[in-house]
Amino acid sequence: METKSSNPDFLFQSVTLIGIGLIGSSIARAIKKTEYIVENLVLTDVDKLVRAKAKKLGFADSVEDNLCAAVVGADCVILCTPIGNYAEIIESISGHLKPGCIVSDVGSVKRAPITDMSPYIPENVHFVPGHPIAGTEKSGPESGFAELFDGRYWLLTPPVGTNRKAVKKMRCLFEAIGAMVEEMDPDYHDKVLALTSHLPHLIAYTIVGTADDLEDQTQADVIRFSASGFRDFTRLAGSNPIMWRDIFLNNREAVLEMLQRFSEDLTALQRAIRWGEADTLEELFTRTRKIRLGVIDAKQEVPPSANKSR
Amino acid sequence: METKSSNPDFLFQSVTLIGIGLIGSSIARAIKKTEYIVENLVLTDVDKLVRAKAKKLGFADSVEDNLCAAVVGADCVILCTPIGNYAEIIESISGHLKPGCIVSDVGSVKRAPITDMSPYIPENVHFVPGHPIAGTEKSGPESGFAELFDGRYWLLTPPVGTNRKAVKKMRCLFEAIGAMVEEMDPDYHDKVLALTSHLPHLIAYTIVGTADDLEDQTQADVIRFSASGFRDFTRLAGSNPIMWRDIFLNNREAVLEMLQRFSEDLTALQRAIRWGEADTLEELFTRTRKIRLGVIDAKQEVPPSANKSR
Repeated sequence: METKSSNPDFLFQSVTLIGIGLIGSSIARAIKKTEYIVENLVLTDVDKLVRAKAKKLGFADSVEDNLCAAVVGADCVILCTPIGNYAEIIESISGHLKPGCIVSDVGSVKRAPITDMSPYIPENVHFVPGHPIAGTEKSGPESGFAELFDGRYWLLTPPVGTNRKAVKKMRCLFEAIGAMVEEMDPDYHDKVLALTSHLPHLIAYTIVGTADDLEDQTQADVIRFSASGFRDFTRLAGSNPIMWRDIFLNNREAVLEMLQRFSEDLTALQRAIRWGEADTLEELFTRTRKIRLGVIDAKQEVPPSANKSR
Repeated sequence: METKSSNPDFLFQSVTLIGIGLIGSSIARAIKKTEYIVENLVLTDVDKLVRAKAKKLGFADSVEDNLCAAVVGADCVILCTPIGNYAEIIESISGHLKPGCIVSDVGSVKRAPITDMSPYIPENVHFVPGHPIAGTEKSGPESGFAELFDGRYWLLTPPVGTNRKAVKKMRCLFEAIGAMVEEMDPDYHDKVLALTSHLPHLIAYTIVGTADDLEDQTQADVIRFSASGFRDFTRLAGSNPIMWRDIFLNNREAVLEMLQRFSEDLTALQRAIRWGEADTLEELFTRTRKIRLGVIDAKQEVPPSANKSR
């Protein structure tokens, strides 16, 4: 990569993405598609094979082998790795961050990363944690695509006292690549996502695991005749295992609380089935339709043609 | 409708569908699209408005107001109503069925309908229960479409001793409208479907109900920021309440057994999260990917362009 003189027309002169999986590679592709946003885009990944793939796919100005070298001179560094790696990464790079640099991330949990990373964020560096509510069950740099964030929410959870100009710049960046940006309290974020994303994935992993424990013939027929329901669950349960392990370990309290509520409700429904309480079942099944209509109204339902982006 | 002389080129001279919802109207559309399958297609529904819609949509030779009149002279009668209505319907029509008539259904549970209906099936009438593994969360005659069964399984569960020619004719009919037909033991069917369809719907209804009980602001944000997972669950939980009430009441034993297994597995996972057992989580999350690949191999995963048919 040749050294360029900085061009003030760009929002950021240099952005570094750490981690080139589905999200990192989608951000990279979206940034390179957008003019005057980032002049110099640098990627790095701990995995040599992933770096080689990213070089070959060619959606950045450079792919760096060395983590610390990758962040030198960056105006913005975004962590796109599983949450469990954050503390180690920020400890390694903190001495190499340039004054005024903005550090962000894309993790599905927000309180634990803030607690873990904040001690390592230098005084003159800004920390603007984020979470794009977008993804697919696929992993790796080849799975990303530039349109992943189109019309999806990108939640920012800056700690109290965060520099407002830094928050605004991150908002501009994410809006430029198609997202709708909202600010939110990190604990509230973790509670909402525990119900909308973490608990559903936990349940999906559980039920697919239950199927995996069936005797061979039944399991084969469960797969063969998998109907609407189980088929959707297998999609969720095909997501990145390391990423999801870290989500559950880092949002333990909120997930356990939502799981407790869910289990109580499930037990009540189990009892209604056992005792043949037709009215209880019908009442719940009718009530839940209202929420479905809300999701459709909120335009968070994905049209069939855009299915690959979810 | 004028009286026609029967044409031996057709598989059936006259078929009557009872119930014109998503499935009934899809069968009707698929039959009318297929030449030399059914010469005369009659529909009926208990709901006057539904009958009026069906008449307007015009995908049958006639729509009958009277249930018993609708089955007179039919070579084949297919029940496409919620399972809870079967006993009453068969009791009403049994005296009007012509000798040699084949009675079938499309219910998602198979043992209970066989037990409930068999006493009312006349000696000279054949009973070939069936279940198309196809559907969407939508209801009503306007939601159906002719391609709903393309490449989907249609499971037949004829009681022991059922006339083989009758089974073969039903196989021909369902294959002609695009389905892949398989025969299966009714109890085994109910066990497999309890896991692949009934339990996932029960869980989806539960978690969406859990969300409905949250205080207003959180519930609004759960809907607004609904991520992959919850959004899929709302789709399942938007399905026909009466149909699903009847499924749970009629497949009680198998659903409760699968629910028990699931609950044990969920409790184990809950414990792993509480105690931070990273390896337990990662092991399960890795294992479940295998089942996902199996579903994709079995071609039961629906491509994005065909999403409306699921």
